[in-house]
Amino acid sequence: MNPKRCAACKYLRRKCPKDCIFSPYFPPSDPHKFACIHRIYGAGNVSKMLQQLPVQTRAEAVESLSFEAKCRVDDPVYGCVGIISLLQTQIQKTQTLLAKTQAEIAVAQTKHSQHTNL
Amino acid sequence: MNPKRCAACKYLRRKCPKDCIFSPYFPPSDPHKFACIHRIYGAGNVSKMLQQLPVQTRAEAVESLSFEAKCRVDDPVYGCVGIISLLQTQIQKTQTLLAKTQAEIAVAQTKHSQHTNL
Repeated sequence: MNPKRCAACKYLRRKCPKDCIFSPYFPPSDPHKFACIHRIYGAGNVSKMLQQLPVQTRAEAVESLSFEAKCRVDDPVYGCVGIISLLQTQIQKTQTLLAKTQAEIAVAQTKHSQHTNL
Repeated sequence: MNPKRCAACKYLRRKCPKDCIFSPYFPPSDPHKFACIHRIYGAGNVSKMLQQLPVQTRAEAVESLSFEAKCRVDDPVYGCVGIISLLQTQIQKTQTLLAKTQAEIAVAQTKHSQHTNL
């Protein structure tokens, strides 16, 4: 066995070929990353998805797939959609606060101009 | 063939068993929903994920998996992580605007109190 197999090939207990589609993105130092991806998508699906992408976009695709897989392992019901919901709530709260603050400014400006016109 | 097969069993060209794990969540009227899920996760992985969840949480899990799968089909590089990035940018912009507005209030209030103290 090649001790420099990538994390994917090590996980899949196979030889790591020279042109391994996983090896640039799954270094042996981070076995958990591939384990998550494999559990959620399956190695075959990830390999297929990567093959359909231009090489220069694959690293970003692996990062986003890996993020989604970790979220799904942590939260099997909502996955990273739970994060989207949280962020949307945060945006709504901030926008409400912003509207309130802008209304306060308008009131303060009206009072100020009434005062200066007296 | 049972004409009332669920969308998953229809897609997989198999009989829809009485206790089909997919049928409550994949009505025959929406074949695209299962097609996306199958393309990204594979039917076996989704079945496994659902089996590991309490029945009352499965509908929500299917919705979030389905959303993530559709996002991944639409954006194969970033998937729904692209939406998270967009929302985070929107939050930062709104928070910056809020801080600016609050600073404007502080300036207006200081001017107002200086004016009334004269």
